[in-house]
Amino acid sequence: MGENGLVRIVILGGGFAGISAAMELGRRTRRNRGIEVHLVSEENYFVFQPMLPEVVACRIEPTHILNPIRQLCKHVQFHCATVESIDTESREIRIVGRDKRRVQTLGYDHLVVALGLTMDLSRIPGMAEHSLPIKTLGDAFHLRNHVLSMLEEADIEPDECLRRQALTVVTVGGGFSGVETVAEINDMIKAVLRYYPKARATGARIVLIHSRDRILNELGEGLARFAEQKLRDRGVELILESRVKEASPTGIVLNDGRTIQAGTVICTVGNGPHPLIAKTGFPQERGRILADEHLRVGGVEGIWALGDAAMIPDVRRGGYCPPTAQYAMRQGKQCARNVLAAIAGKPTQPFAFGGLGQLAVVGHRCGVAHILGVNVAGLLAWWLWRSVYFMKLPGLRSKIRVGIDWALDMVFPRDITKLDVERTRRVPRAHFREGDMIIRRGEIGDRFYIMETGEAEVLQPDAAGEDRRVATLTAGDSFGEIALLNDTLRTASVRCLTPVDVISFARSDFQALVGSYDILRIKVSDDLARRTARDPDA
Amino acid sequence: MGENGLVRIVILGGGFAGISAAMELGRRTRRNRGIEVHLVSEENYFVFQPMLPEVVACRIEPTHILNPIRQLCKHVQFHCATVESIDTESREIRIVGRDKRRVQTLGYDHLVVALGLTMDLSRIPGMAEHSLPIKTLGDAFHLRNHVLSMLEEADIEPDECLRRQALTVVTVGGGFSGVETVAEINDMIKAVLRYYPKARATGARIVLIHSRDRILNELGEGLARFAEQKLRDRGVELILESRVKEASPTGIVLNDGRTIQAGTVICTVGNGPHPLIAKTGFPQERGRILADEHLRVGGVEGIWALGDAAMIPDVRRGGYCPPTAQYAMRQGKQCARNVLAAIAGKPTQPFAFGGLGQLAVVGHRCGVAHILGVNVAGLLAWWLWRSVYFMKLPGLRSKIRVGIDWALDMVFPRDITKLDVERTRRVPRAHFREGDMIIRRGEIGDRFYIMETGEAEVLQPDAAGEDRRVATLTAGDSFGEIALLNDTLRTASVRCLTPVDVISFARSDFQALVGSYDILRIKVSDDLARRTARDPDA
Repeated sequence: MGENGLVRIVILGGGFAGISAAMELGRRTRRNRGIEVHLVSEENYFVFQPMLPEVVACRIEPTHILNPIRQLCKHVQFHCATVESIDTESREIRIVGRDKRRVQTLGYDHLVVALGLTMDLSRIPGMAEHSLPIKTLGDAFHLRNHVLSMLEEADIEPDECLRRQALTVVTVGGGFSGVETVAEINDMIKAVLRYYPKARATGARIVLIHSRDRILNELGEGLARFAEQKLRDRGVELILESRVKEASPTGIVLNDGRTIQAGTVICTVGNGPHPLIAKTGFPQERGRILADEHLRVGGVEGIWALGDAAMIPDVRRGGYCPPTAQYAMRQGKQCARNVLAAIAGKPTQPFAFGGLGQLAVVGHRCGVAHILGVNVAGLLAWWLWRSVYFMKLPGLRSKIRVGIDWALDMVFPRDITKLDVERTRRVPRAHFREGDMIIRRGEIGDRFYIMETGEAEVLQPDAAGEDRRVATLTAGDSFGEIALLNDTLRTASVRCLTPVDVISFARSDFQALVGSYDILRIKVSDDLARRTARDPDA
Repeated sequence: MGENGLVRIVILGGGFAGISAAMELGRRTRRNRGIEVHLVSEENYFVFQPMLPEVVACRIEPTHILNPIRQLCKHVQFHCATVESIDTESREIRIVGRDKRRVQTLGYDHLVVALGLTMDLSRIPGMAEHSLPIKTLGDAFHLRNHVLSMLEEADIEPDECLRRQALTVVTVGGGFSGVETVAEINDMIKAVLRYYPKARATGARIVLIHSRDRILNELGEGLARFAEQKLRDRGVELILESRVKEASPTGIVLNDGRTIQAGTVICTVGNGPHPLIAKTGFPQERGRILADEHLRVGGVEGIWALGDAAMIPDVRRGGYCPPTAQYAMRQGKQCARNVLAAIAGKPTQPFAFGGLGQLAVVGHRCGVAHILGVNVAGLLAWWLWRSVYFMKLPGLRSKIRVGIDWALDMVFPRDITKLDVERTRRVPRAHFREGDMIIRRGEIGDRFYIMETGEAEVLQPDAAGEDRRVATLTAGDSFGEIALLNDTLRTASVRCLTPVDVISFARSDFQALVGSYDILRIKVSDDLARRTARDPDA
């Protein structure tokens, strides 16, 4: 029991599984004042992932497939934060907000883990740095703008060879996500090339690379071959039974040594486990939590797991449930019912769902589908795709907006606005007023500072717990290194005695620099040694 | 005359002035094969600036007020690039694309300069670093997300003092942009606070700071006082006759010493001249080009100037034309006609426009307007605002989308999706394949590299112009510094002999680091000295 005798349910993750659990729990507990439902997610919106390829292809506006979680999940307390750790002893989780400075704890009676998967591209050299994933809305947004940037570059590039490179798009992975992405991007580029006269003269090259001998492994061979033929008819180059060995800013190398010069490399493979799960003591297999068919994690009280982060026995078809949205949504609902049953001391029900089928769009008004045991291909499958996903899209506003986007798409040319929303200049400088705290003791260290002008004091608590000045910093001094190097919390505060200008570096930039530029590492270590001798460090 | 005896008109700038000139020229020359029209702009879209405050306030989706220039300006050749220089001797401009590596030249017979103004916040310490401008779509997008981030932070922040800071929004400048922004943000925060229960308990503080004794100086005193009262009624705190002395991450200091702790500081003042104009020999005053009433720049043949970048005599009302959209659009059309008249050897016409009036929205369905000599306030003025700007919004698709946004806004709650579209990890590392060129001779140096693994060769042309290896680079070597420090083009190429991993830093980060961290400067200089002795630098 939490504070005030309330039972507190905490859900981690804002994907299909987490959101449907939260919606169901909110609905069922709205009149129950004894139960509190909390949801923690890094983004404050739910993104309808099946439509991401259409966002990349400028058919749907990025914001239209989003739903604010606070508006979607009623009677649920929402925390826009990252989960740092799960403590099953004290039954608490630790979360940090966007500014990554202050840790907060949240107790739970029941914890629903729906953290999903993350991308792990570290196995292929260059892939993490130079390929573009399509998993989050940010990814889709970035990819859309990158493809349009390449068209703009190609249109002013005088070198034929570089122009051809800019106009080549390679997609890695022939699963549902890869096929739909390559089909949408191919349609899009073909549709908008007429606005880029020089690029049009060169022409675009769209390539799909897949490791097996046919794409869409989840569908039968007939549908897969149909899809392949449709893609080829529409100008997509298919490279099967090949893997990417290496990626660089100018393209990729395949395992047989072939190279493809490409301005855009899209990666749809490489799903890895959520890093937090490995740190917990939950029973797991390859980073995914093992749960029973009641979605309960064995051996740890009050823990439930579902969605892509979990391995749940498929009672209908054997094996484990596949990591798809239709399973995740139904698991969310079942989990909500089971958690409430457990609280009420009633028996829980097993999750029993056999799947309805699979759908993919493979190009202009053409799809493939295997639904309720029947194979469908062509216009009908495309129409089914649109109908099914339109129905599943949560929120009336999203439905109206996507519907209008689809209607406008039939009448108007594509929207080729290339949105560079990064701020014009990212000054690594900061200015602080007299009295401002630059860093505070106990916060997470995520930046390192060099003083340019002004004077500041380093504060640490004395025996009585009062803050005392232990050192003074002036121009040229640096501070904040230890927390960065050692990954701990700030051990002292720094307060400005005058207006202060600093240059500040983020943890990641700093680590890259220190990790590689030996002389700087030595210099920083010297600094630390000197400062530690002179005064307790900040 | 350009190549092939064509007359080439080049327009610089994609704001109201540049776009309306390009649209008019495109229309009038569509059947004239002797004239070529080119437009250069940094963004590939035209943004309808009057609606930016509504974008910030989540009433209109960001993409809806954009129009792709390639679709808007027909029969015009578009270059998505930054103008580096204007050479009036050779009648050429130099442009660089987004990747900032390759310079291209574009000759002209007539040059239409419509570069607008830029933000210059350097006079107030901390303002450039810590205040958010609202000038471009990127700014509006960033501001919207920042305000929503602050709400999310406030809702999980246990410290009352920090929560109040996160919920304080300060807007600097009481002109049209500042008033409309503060009114929209105030409405928005009041409307969405109910989704943030903890933040709601604390309440938001919305402040407008203006240097004069009344806001909206361009309108009469009666309308200004009405607007002030309306803002106060809706809970906005007005601080008049005050200036900001200093800004920091935690808020601002006023010239009378008062401080306001604020999580968001919006700056709507500080327009400065476009930096390129100072470098040209054009007659100018405080960075703006002096043109005559025919929009022609005296003393330089074939140069025309208009929009905010120009000072043009106002033949109707005396003085100079004000920097507003209604003047800029009409100047664009007049300029197009005059350029074509000059080409045809016909007389040009002076720009004669007296302005139609001014409109501002000051809160929920309430506006102030001075139109055709009549003062209007309240609902009617708000309705006029919507009608006028809706009519002026270019493109039917934008009209449909904005109309639908306005309709949805009356039925649905605000869309509070906080879009973090920055990519998850910005690895400063890069991987190159064997044979890849990391840098190319003649490109603009915008990055500096440290080799982590692999081997690369430095290539320079010999007497016969053939590329020859002049040095080999291995792990730990760095290259690319000279172009960064001296702001020149790359003097050598670097090609990979094996797969290579590098860490790379952008020019701006590098300059900040070298400019401040003395020891690193020494180290880099040593490196340079050694490398220059050992081999010609890359």
